[in-house]
Amino acid sequence: MELLVLREGVHGIPTESYAEALRSRLDGHAIRYARTPDEEREAIPTADVVTGLRLDRSLLERADALDVFACAYVGTSHLPLDALAEHGVRVTNAAGVHTPNASEQAIGSMLAFSRRLHEAARADTWQPATPTELSGSTVTIVGLGAIGRGIAKRLEPFGVDTIGVRRTPESGGPTDEVLGPDSLHDALARSQFVVLCCPLTDETRGLVGPEELGTLPPDAVLVNVARGEVIDTDALVEYLRRGWIGGAALDVTDPEPLPDDHPLWGLNDALITPHSAGSTPAYYERLADIVAENVGRLDSGASLRNEVRIETSDDLE
Amino acid sequence: MELLVLREGVHGIPTESYAEALRSRLDGHAIRYARTPDEEREAIPTADVVTGLRLDRSLLERADALDVFACAYVGTSHLPLDALAEHGVRVTNAAGVHTPNASEQAIGSMLAFSRRLHEAARADTWQPATPTELSGSTVTIVGLGAIGRGIAKRLEPFGVDTIGVRRTPESGGPTDEVLGPDSLHDALARSQFVVLCCPLTDETRGLVGPEELGTLPPDAVLVNVARGEVIDTDALVEYLRRGWIGGAALDVTDPEPLPDDHPLWGLNDALITPHSAGSTPAYYERLADIVAENVGRLDSGASLRNEVRIETSDDLE
Repeated sequence: MELLVLREGVHGIPTESYAEALRSRLDGHAIRYARTPDEEREAIPTADVVTGLRLDRSLLERADALDVFACAYVGTSHLPLDALAEHGVRVTNAAGVHTPNASEQAIGSMLAFSRRLHEAARADTWQPATPTELSGSTVTIVGLGAIGRGIAKRLEPFGVDTIGVRRTPESGGPTDEVLGPDSLHDALARSQFVVLCCPLTDETRGLVGPEELGTLPPDAVLVNVARGEVIDTDALVEYLRRGWIGGAALDVTDPEPLPDDHPLWGLNDALITPHSAGSTPAYYERLADIVAENVGRLDSGASLRNEVRIETSDDLE
Repeated sequence: MELLVLREGVHGIPTESYAEALRSRLDGHAIRYARTPDEEREAIPTADVVTGLRLDRSLLERADALDVFACAYVGTSHLPLDALAEHGVRVTNAAGVHTPNASEQAIGSMLAFSRRLHEAARADTWQPATPTELSGSTVTIVGLGAIGRGIAKRLEPFGVDTIGVRRTPESGGPTDEVLGPDSLHDALARSQFVVLCCPLTDETRGLVGPEELGTLPPDAVLVNVARGEVIDTDALVEYLRRGWIGGAALDVTDPEPLPDDHPLWGLNDALITPHSAGSTPAYYERLADIVAENVGRLDSGASLRNEVRIETSDDLE
């Protein structure tokens, strides 16, 4: 089988290392790596599988042998999905690749607040601290996709009660309770920690506004590894300023990047990371695991892992 | 049975809440709370169990009915252990009370470094970050007492390889490997994270010096929730200054408190917490669990939980 790795990388890591990761997993298959647009055009006609960040229509027109486009990103809304479907090309994504690092970022953020590590990082003298603990607390996870499930799994030995909130609570999940969006307020009222890891959709835009912030216990900590627009930022600034919630760890903001003069920067109980929860040195290794597994499945005619259904819309998923 | 709660508290929390926690668990027993030295002297002659931070000899002389002194602290070297033994008083300690919070502090510290949360806490503008992850790394835990085991247990879902180092490796432990002190260097050479949670003894004083720091991979992160003297601080400062190790999360220092002009304060990759890993709002609740369980065991004649053997010395335990 012939695989083509396109040049455009994710998180600023060159795709050459991705091609190497595929080669080390796919002995006996031809892995071609295109460093330039010309090389992409030259190599695509014979490729059975193409992998990369995006595939534009002009390349697609030349892709005579293409069976699968393995998108190197979790989101696929930037792809010409209709045209890919018309050409009979199946699409897979990178879902799951971020799970360890994003889960770690969320749990690290909770622990930073409970153990006051964000304050310690800023201190330049020895001052008493009054930390709390995760143990015994209730954690609500909004969105039970791969990352939400990864967070729940890693929280298991910490002795917390977990509540998952998802669009389809009947699907269940690894949390102690699984609730639907209608029960969000009930979950918030009981939570010391709330992690947002849902996709941004019409339903989740502005999901956490003044009503939701006011429903949280006053010591609750909000962690956002979803998208900035899921939170009403002005309301959050107000709540943090007044000390009406315990804190907010924001890996994503609205707007983004957060301007230098934004009031969030000055707040003691805001911990802002630069949309880095998705960043991991293992990105291409884990992506190569998925794509190499799918090459094996193509050989055997099995269904693909991470295949993207066109018109999928897993709100709050 | 009659229990007496002495007035002196731990971590600055009044023992009145401890007496309440005992009352809620020991219906049918008399729980007396002494707010003053006079009240202590007045109440002690009839007490079967006394609990508190310390018990001095003058009180002990009056303790005619005393069976157990339930020390509210993990360490008992400040107690007149010989005199207690002479009076036939058994001693229990608070071992295990710190396990959730100290384990959380250690894991939070590791995650803070891997996800660069300590840098984020100090930032006041949006700057790119290059985080790493715990997943796939090797973590050495020096000391497999309650806290070391608690850390290992909580790390299980994180996909790390764990090495425990203890004085008695033949006792085993919950880590993937258990090694003796002779194999410390072998463990360090393979570790991205090293957590110190051993007691301070002649064997562990200065355990991590220039040789050990030089054996660590240059990106390794050292976490100390044991005692400051376990690390050669001057050597650590040197290694951090030169960027020869990845970072150090120090909950304990040598000297302590760390003076305002100490060079550790100025180092980007040092994260200093003020000996707060042991601090938890749940302290008295968990201590009351132990003591209440032991009251039940006294009733039934069973052996006590957390009984302190005189001349115990669990080095590297």
